[in-house]
Amino acid sequence: MTATVGTNPLDRTVIRARVDNALYEFLERKTRAGTASGLPGDVTDAVRSFLFAGGKRIRPLLCAFGWHAAGGGELPNEIIRAAAALEMFHAAVLIHDDIIDNSDTRRDQPTVHRAAADRNRTARDAAAADLFGTSAAILIGDFALVWSDELLHTAGLSAEQLAAAAPVLDAMRSEVNYGQYLDLLTTGHPTADLDQALEIIRYKTAAYTVERPLQLGAVLAGAGSDVCEALSAYARPLGEAFQLQDDLLGVFGDPARTGKSIVDDLREGKHTALLALALRNADADQAARLRGLVGNRRLDERGAAICREILAVTARTEVEQLIRERWLRVQRALDKAPFPAAAIAALRATADAIVARAS
Amino acid sequence: MTATVGTNPLDRTVIRARVDNALYEFLERKTRAGTASGLPGDVTDAVRSFLFAGGKRIRPLLCAFGWHAAGGGELPNEIIRAAAALEMFHAAVLIHDDIIDNSDTRRDQPTVHRAAADRNRTARDAAAADLFGTSAAILIGDFALVWSDELLHTAGLSAEQLAAAAPVLDAMRSEVNYGQYLDLLTTGHPTADLDQALEIIRYKTAAYTVERPLQLGAVLAGAGSDVCEALSAYARPLGEAFQLQDDLLGVFGDPARTGKSIVDDLREGKHTALLALALRNADADQAARLRGLVGNRRLDERGAAICREILAVTARTEVEQLIRERWLRVQRALDKAPFPAAAIAALRATADAIVARAS
Repeated sequence: MTATVGTNPLDRTVIRARVDNALYEFLERKTRAGTASGLPGDVTDAVRSFLFAGGKRIRPLLCAFGWHAAGGGELPNEIIRAAAALEMFHAAVLIHDDIIDNSDTRRDQPTVHRAAADRNRTARDAAAADLFGTSAAILIGDFALVWSDELLHTAGLSAEQLAAAAPVLDAMRSEVNYGQYLDLLTTGHPTADLDQALEIIRYKTAAYTVERPLQLGAVLAGAGSDVCEALSAYARPLGEAFQLQDDLLGVFGDPARTGKSIVDDLREGKHTALLALALRNADADQAARLRGLVGNRRLDERGAAICREILAVTARTEVEQLIRERWLRVQRALDKAPFPAAAIAALRATADAIVARAS
Repeated sequence: MTATVGTNPLDRTVIRARVDNALYEFLERKTRAGTASGLPGDVTDAVRSFLFAGGKRIRPLLCAFGWHAAGGGELPNEIIRAAAALEMFHAAVLIHDDIIDNSDTRRDQPTVHRAAADRNRTARDAAAADLFGTSAAILIGDFALVWSDELLHTAGLSAEQLAAAAPVLDAMRSEVNYGQYLDLLTTGHPTADLDQALEIIRYKTAAYTVERPLQLGAVLAGAGSDVCEALSAYARPLGEAFQLQDDLLGVFGDPARTGKSIVDDLREGKHTALLALALRNADADQAARLRGLVGNRRLDERGAAICREILAVTARTEVEQLIRERWLRVQRALDKAPFPAAAIAALRATADAIVARAS
């Protein structure tokens, strides 16, 4: 038997490299066109730095797996470019999200709005520099948003593929915006309402991060409703498990591995399932201490440690149980999924990686 | 001869009403879908209030005129919906623009970010309420942006029409973002650089407000390059005249008629052609006074009156002359344009209205 390294069409490393190449080429084209028109290069620079500072490319990978699940076979470049459009859209979401969350860093680098503000500290007073940073990041996010659309419809897809992709993408874009909006409404006012926390997860993560990317790949391969439904049966519990795990990592993770603060979620008072369960299970003293600390924008590491202790005894195990339940539903969905065996294996590995991940 | 009131396919009132109806129906559909999913109605409410608080619908009108210029004839509903998509996109641009400009009012109403912040004053401290307002408006702008795309590709256009529209819209979206970005970079630092001020106008207004909407209508009617070039020859000088006029109204207009402050542009220090010419023509004393006042965020009505006086004697006449030159180029472009006579009449009336307008 000869080695097949690099020839497996589901090889994540290969898919990631091809997606990155598509993103890089698109931005190079934009940079050249901008330079030719005398436009400032900071916009393409900012989008490029953001995209290539890291990121797991999970949405493009799932788009590729959806294509395979629907029997699409070898991945042509137009599908890679469509997958890359998802990553470009995600950059827009994150750039705007970092303004909303008032985050200083992302992927170990200053966030787009913070970097733009810092570049302007000498020329403006503090408030003006901050407004400049926010403004620049709003516009850079808007660029990424409209460019994601351009990447998609210049990908070389057929009119039928574009028509099949449109409703999936419409749904995805509205869902993530609603998820962000619900998140905004509830942040700083966490309650014991677990259902609401799970609803936010469904919009923000299950649909946006898992279900729609898989469906996009599938409909591009001409999938029927059986494949799309089987993908949803896999995607929804996996998306929930992914976000529940992310909530745990946002409090109990290792920042050196996740590149993510373990104080920010608590400081912002994100309405997570973890916090909802903690408030439901806490005794009066624990609940009062949580309410006093969570959502306090001056929360320090010591306060965060107290929260962490309470969350560990009141809710951590239950969240881990929610994750396991969802993980089992994922397995059952795959056991009966009408996908090629290689696609099932890839989706199973993805699920395992997400639930076991520490970063 | 019988009356033809209301039967003229170029009747602005009729086109506006049909566009508004398309916007209204789209948002009703979104509201119903949201309610059915238990989503908060504030998003569709905010977009609806914003769209129906006013607005001249100039981009949809020009899209309709572009359709007629290319011989499209009667306006079918799918072209009305495509035109409505431009207005939805414009709502996104303005909602984000109001954050960037730190504006309190638009169309005599609180801006989206200010209204959202004010609704949260009791529940949060001042800084948190302001960040909430900015965050909500970023997301509501993002909704309008992705919904503009959905409006377009659910308009009922053919695959050929969608393919023809895509490069026009791609160009338009990048251009307005670059215009906004250049505006942001130069605001607060006005200089005597007239060329730069005119470059911003080309991106922000000439392309975005006039040329691309006309071209969109034209390519949807299957226009060739002769029609598109004739439209550009009309659109570019008109767009520049429109923005130069807007800059004058932003300083010398009647707020009761324009619904626009005549202090904001000066307070923000917008790098306009008016200001560039003033700085070029001013004597040392006038230039020093302008530099001291323009871009000062605490500029009051008295300071604005001093600016106004200096701008009136140093630059107003020259800007009026720039407008007249462009108006003449618009007329010459129409004189030789290969459009149906009714379309030429409508485009001529539009140009007259823009250059004569006081609001």
